Amino acid sequence: MRRTVKIFLIWFLLTLSVSIVNGAENDPLPSWNEGASKKSIVDFVERVTREGAPDYVKPEERIATFDHDGTLWAEQPMYFQIMFAMDRVRAMAPKHPDWKNKQPFKAVLDRDIKALAALGETGFLKIMAVTHTGITTDDFTKIVADWIATARHPRFNRPYTELVYQPMLELLAYVRANGFKTFIVSGGGVEFMRVFTERVYGIPPEQVVGSSGVVQFQMRPNYKPVLLKQGKIEFVDDGPGKPVGINRFIGRRPIFAFGNSDGDQQMLEWTAAGSGARFMGLVHHTDAEREWAYDRKSPVGRLDQAWNEAMKRGWTVTSMKTEWKKIFAFEQ
Amino acid sequence: MRRTVKIFLIWFLLTLSVSIVNGAENDPLPSWNEGASKKSIVDFVERVTREGAPDYVKPEERIATFDHDGTLWAEQPMYFQIMFAMDRVRAMAPKHPDWKNKQPFKAVLDRDIKALAALGETGFLKIMAVTHTGITTDDFTKIVADWIATARHPRFNRPYTELVYQPMLELLAYVRANGFKTFIVSGGGVEFMRVFTERVYGIPPEQVVGSSGVVQFQMRPNYKPVLLKQGKIEFVDDGPGKPVGINRFIGRRPIFAFGNSDGDQQMLEWTAAGSGARFMGLVHHTDAEREWAYDRKSPVGRLDQAWNEAMKRGWTVTSMKTEWKKIFAFEQ
Repeated sequence: MRRTVKIFLIWFLLTLSVSIVNGAENDPLPSWNEGASKKSIVDFVERVTREGAPDYVKPEERIATFDHDGTLWAEQPMYFQIMFAMDRVRAMAPKHPDWKNKQPFKAVLDRDIKALAALGETGFLKIMAVTHTGITTDDFTKIVADWIATARHPRFNRPYTELVYQPMLELLAYVRANGFKTFIVSGGGVEFMRVFTERVYGIPPEQVVGSSGVVQFQMRPNYKPVLLKQGKIEFVDDGPGKPVGINRFIGRRPIFAFGNSDGDQQMLEWTAAGSGARFMGLVHHTDAEREWAYDRKSPVGRLDQAWNEAMKRGWTVTSMKTEWKKIFAFEQ
Repeated sequence: MRRTVKIFLIWFLLTLSVSIVNGAENDPLPSWNEGASKKSIVDFVERVTREGAPDYVKPEERIATFDHDGTLWAEQPMYFQIMFAMDRVRAMAPKHPDWKNKQPFKAVLDRDIKALAALGETGFLKIMAVTHTGITTDDFTKIVADWIATARHPRFNRPYTELVYQPMLELLAYVRANGFKTFIVSGGGVEFMRVFTERVYGIPPEQVVGSSGVVQFQMRPNYKPVLLKQGKIEFVDDGPGKPVGINRFIGRRPIFAFGNSDGDQQMLEWTAAGSGARFMGLVHHTDAEREWAYDRKSPVGRLDQAWNEAMKRGWTVTSMKTEWKKIFAFEQ
């Protein structure tokens, strides 16, 4: 008898340990704590993918949209595309000696953030104009690719593409494994993001929606057509522009959307207003140590109105500090 | 010996007949004659999909773009979206008694094509304005879906979606089976096409690039957001607009493009200018009996400059009359 009990105990412990190991191995979201956000994500995905269930959604309708800056990668001390533009001004400066005494370029060259901030949107638009226009789309792609490969984030001294959030990479892979088609819907420039989204997020260029400038088709000698980037903004994919961008580029309403700031509120409202099960999520930047902590008063990635809305309407708000075991892959 | 010969003969004939049957069964393009077009298509697809071959293209780069009107479905006596707009004017007329005496509506209600033609673009734009704007995108989708389900083509007395070209349906399926991602890139309205492209062509809404009007996000009571179609043209995806639309929506250069008119020339030039193997094709409407015959002088779907270009540069020009065994699926 005692021998039977012993064998049973060994069997029980073996089974238990195997299932613990399997559990960890099979967890599609290992960087997420077992908190409310993870539960709401997994519950939603299971509800819409269970065939025959009332909330079942056909695979082709499983559209998931993700904001980029502050949702998939960091956005401090400034949106990374602005960091790119400022690096680009510095790289172009030797050919523009007058910039040394001319704003907003002087502020960029002097790394005088206060002066730059004082110049406001006008200064910003001038910087974007000289760095993003007057060149072909092919040349722009090369310049961005070179910057992405070589530039380093000032705080972490790592390539910007290492400042992507590990939990969000897992989330992208998890919903895709469940038949979702993942899109980026960002206020950032579409031609900037497309250079690296496939490699970094597994999101191909045709699934990236963003802001854009006018481009013009020109036929150059020897049948060499180019698309020339013009100095005119065509579309701003932010705030109420996000549902417009989703309608224009995707043509279907998402059933799952994740953002982090007031600029994502209308995308989440548009997602919520469809029939059937819906998931609306916001990343809340609460970890000054591992990342940054900011919300209602931040000039970059402000989360104020959308947060109120989320609390009123029961959207998922994910605290980085308490719900993410790991923020960046490089963390110990 | 004689018996051996006999057995051999039987075996030979059996093998032959099996391979003939298999050949027909396995032909991915059964509605195409064994002409130059079919050969150039199959050669191209085999070259870019053979792993290790010099022209091999990775699946994610296999972007194929197709014009819509005159390339995937017919476009006579007028673009079908204009037929829709005219039907819509007639349906709306009871609520607009003044239209009886007001151009261009009078011409539409009187079915006076000459008067309508005389009013030119101004008349056309007025018709598009009253039928395509001032409503939400959701309502517009319902109206188009209803029209697609009920309207009949005047010559064939069949739903417009039966006027799709059987050889092109086979071509779409063939390139997709070879790892291509198929896109429509059309001068037609993107919200009009998306209503039926998935069902008819297997092309989902997010792979349709087209012309668009401005839409505006509005929040209505009870958290009901809508997108309202405004009376302002935003983007014309035709001629030089096609490479612009491809850049904006897809963000990669196609390696395969098919059109039928001068409005497709720049799309084909843009496709041709990439490195590696490329396929550029034009449908030539040469069959007045089964479909229509028109090219250099047609006001709809004119093929003149692009045809010259095709001949100069060795693009594939497909004569419907001689290369397509069947044009429409309903043909005997």
